[in-house]
Amino acid sequence: MARLTELSTPAALVDRARVEANCARMKARAAALGVALRPHLKTAKCAEVAALAGGVGITVSTLEEAAWLAARGYRDQTYAVGITADKLDAAAAIDADLAVLTDDPDVAAAIGARGLPAWIEIDSGQDRGGLRPDDARVVDCARALGAHLRGVLTHAGHSYGCDSTDAVAGVAEAERAAAVAAADAIRAAGIECPGVSVGSTPTAVHARSLDGVTELRAGVYVFFDRFQHAIGSCGADDLALSVLASVVSRRDGAAWIDAGTLALSSERSMDRFGGGYGAVTAPDGAPLPGDPHVDALNQVHGRVVAREGALPALAVGSKVRVWPNHACITAAMFDAYDVIDDGVVVDRWPRLRG
Amino acid sequence: MARLTELSTPAALVDRARVEANCARMKARAAALGVALRPHLKTAKCAEVAALAGGVGITVSTLEEAAWLAARGYRDQTYAVGITADKLDAAAAIDADLAVLTDDPDVAAAIGARGLPAWIEIDSGQDRGGLRPDDARVVDCARALGAHLRGVLTHAGHSYGCDSTDAVAGVAEAERAAAVAAADAIRAAGIECPGVSVGSTPTAVHARSLDGVTELRAGVYVFFDRFQHAIGSCGADDLALSVLASVVSRRDGAAWIDAGTLALSSERSMDRFGGGYGAVTAPDGAPLPGDPHVDALNQVHGRVVAREGALPALAVGSKVRVWPNHACITAAMFDAYDVIDDGVVVDRWPRLRG
Repeated sequence: MARLTELSTPAALVDRARVEANCARMKARAAALGVALRPHLKTAKCAEVAALAGGVGITVSTLEEAAWLAARGYRDQTYAVGITADKLDAAAAIDADLAVLTDDPDVAAAIGARGLPAWIEIDSGQDRGGLRPDDARVVDCARALGAHLRGVLTHAGHSYGCDSTDAVAGVAEAERAAAVAAADAIRAAGIECPGVSVGSTPTAVHARSLDGVTELRAGVYVFFDRFQHAIGSCGADDLALSVLASVVSRRDGAAWIDAGTLALSSERSMDRFGGGYGAVTAPDGAPLPGDPHVDALNQVHGRVVAREGALPALAVGSKVRVWPNHACITAAMFDAYDVIDDGVVVDRWPRLRG
Repeated sequence: MARLTELSTPAALVDRARVEANCARMKARAAALGVALRPHLKTAKCAEVAALAGGVGITVSTLEEAAWLAARGYRDQTYAVGITADKLDAAAAIDADLAVLTDDPDVAAAIGARGLPAWIEIDSGQDRGGLRPDDARVVDCARALGAHLRGVLTHAGHSYGCDSTDAVAGVAEAERAAAVAAADAIRAAGIECPGVSVGSTPTAVHARSLDGVTELRAGVYVFFDRFQHAIGSCGADDLALSVLASVVSRRDGAAWIDAGTLALSSERSMDRFGGGYGAVTAPDGAPLPGDPHVDALNQVHGRVVAREGALPALAVGSKVRVWPNHACITAAMFDAYDVIDDGVVVDRWPRLRG
């Protein structure tokens, strides 16, 4: 078994014990809330992580992801991004029980005509896709789908903007209430609405009740990240994804590493918590003097500076570990995870890039 | 031949005639300046674009890129990112005439012992990798490399921060002068320094003289992008890369498309020119009322809003074309280009993802 520091850099490291613990905790959350779990594989895009996450099926974010995971045995899928009519042939061609999503009555009619199972997207406050629960088009979509209707689905992505766990619990309640209200409107029109699906990692962690909900979707919890830690979704010791990098040039007060935008992503979600593109530690995860972070990126270069005091001596060739802002986007830059356990590389898990 | 609007979205579109014109113009620039051209394939990562770019060889940004392009016939390569000693075996194993780069005397000694050809990185003001030309370590590196020294290499990436073409011309002169001074210092120590390599797209476009330089590297000019247009490196009609996207949800004042961070990247280089993540036009490139742009991104969703007046009617399923901020990073999100000519899809060129 290779030592961590023998890996070629940049490498996406996954701490197996932490993924297992994160997955076990979310399974217990879903069980305690009395709902099924349908993990969102958009974060990990990896069959081995899907196996650890468990659940009744999976959620995917692209048709490519759907096909890739179907080929690896994950056939019960929800494609949780609004579909367009011209993608229905491609969706139907995937060898899976793939349910699609829409908020548009015309698209719903095309889906119904095609006989594909589908969910109706509800807006619970994120203001992205979805219909407000009292919008008459919710029932129009349900009618167009008829027996192919799986249920209503919402994602409270605005939970990411909360500044307290109480606020997240409030968003979770709004998410639940919007989805249940939409299902009730459909049922009041005499149409069966079996499923009520909600989820985002923060609301999944902090929801106080999911009465009326049947299914929980969440994704980033398998790895967590600096941003999820900052908003209170996890502890610092739950972060399971990091990037191993090498120092390639050393200057006064800064070190340049071989992890730039195409390894870390230029995701700036941490701007409201002090900024930067990732926290930097020793390869074993131990803090470094000066609490360094990555403060600037080029395509394949990242600049490491101290946040307080001086940057430690990091000779050219030294290895560091970078803890990313947003695990979903950083993971997307790699086509495999180097899996570590107690600082030793124990496996390599392929993932779908992008 | 498929029509543009029949492509599955998101798709990375490359306008073949524009790439040809951009490549021809840069070849003519290099010829007029009396230097060889070594295009940087970090932008396109594509053999077909390399063929159009021509030149005496190529520049690459990762060893994976080096191997991928070597397998496609591009064997004269410079890996223009500082190498570490533990990557030398991997570099030597690539079936190419691959020259590496360092600014560190210890690494230079390891390269020399290995017998790999190498360049010494010079800092001409970007403050990333490289030694200042008067740093004694320039000669130390040259001595350690001995007969394996290819020359000195610099990249004036700070040209991206300029606000006039005169300022870019000034950076180009500083880039030239720093590289020539470093070569002169090596020669004064009695060591042969055959090559003097400079380049960035803005300085390549606006340099007034490259006296003493042997070779020009530039990359993004094959496609150009909104940022390069904003800083005066090209005209609006030179942009050769765009992303075709579909509207997946329509709301008051906004449309959500199926191109998010993993299609466009969250690159914010346009913040000083009005912000956003990409300009939005009709599929044929014609302007849309309201001058829309992408103002918010999630992983696979982008939000389109008008910059003035109202957003035009864009029904779910409508196609739009997004013109990215930074072509290198947007292109990296795809594994092929859909090549268009006069609005018709004429080819599909594979590229190395990432």
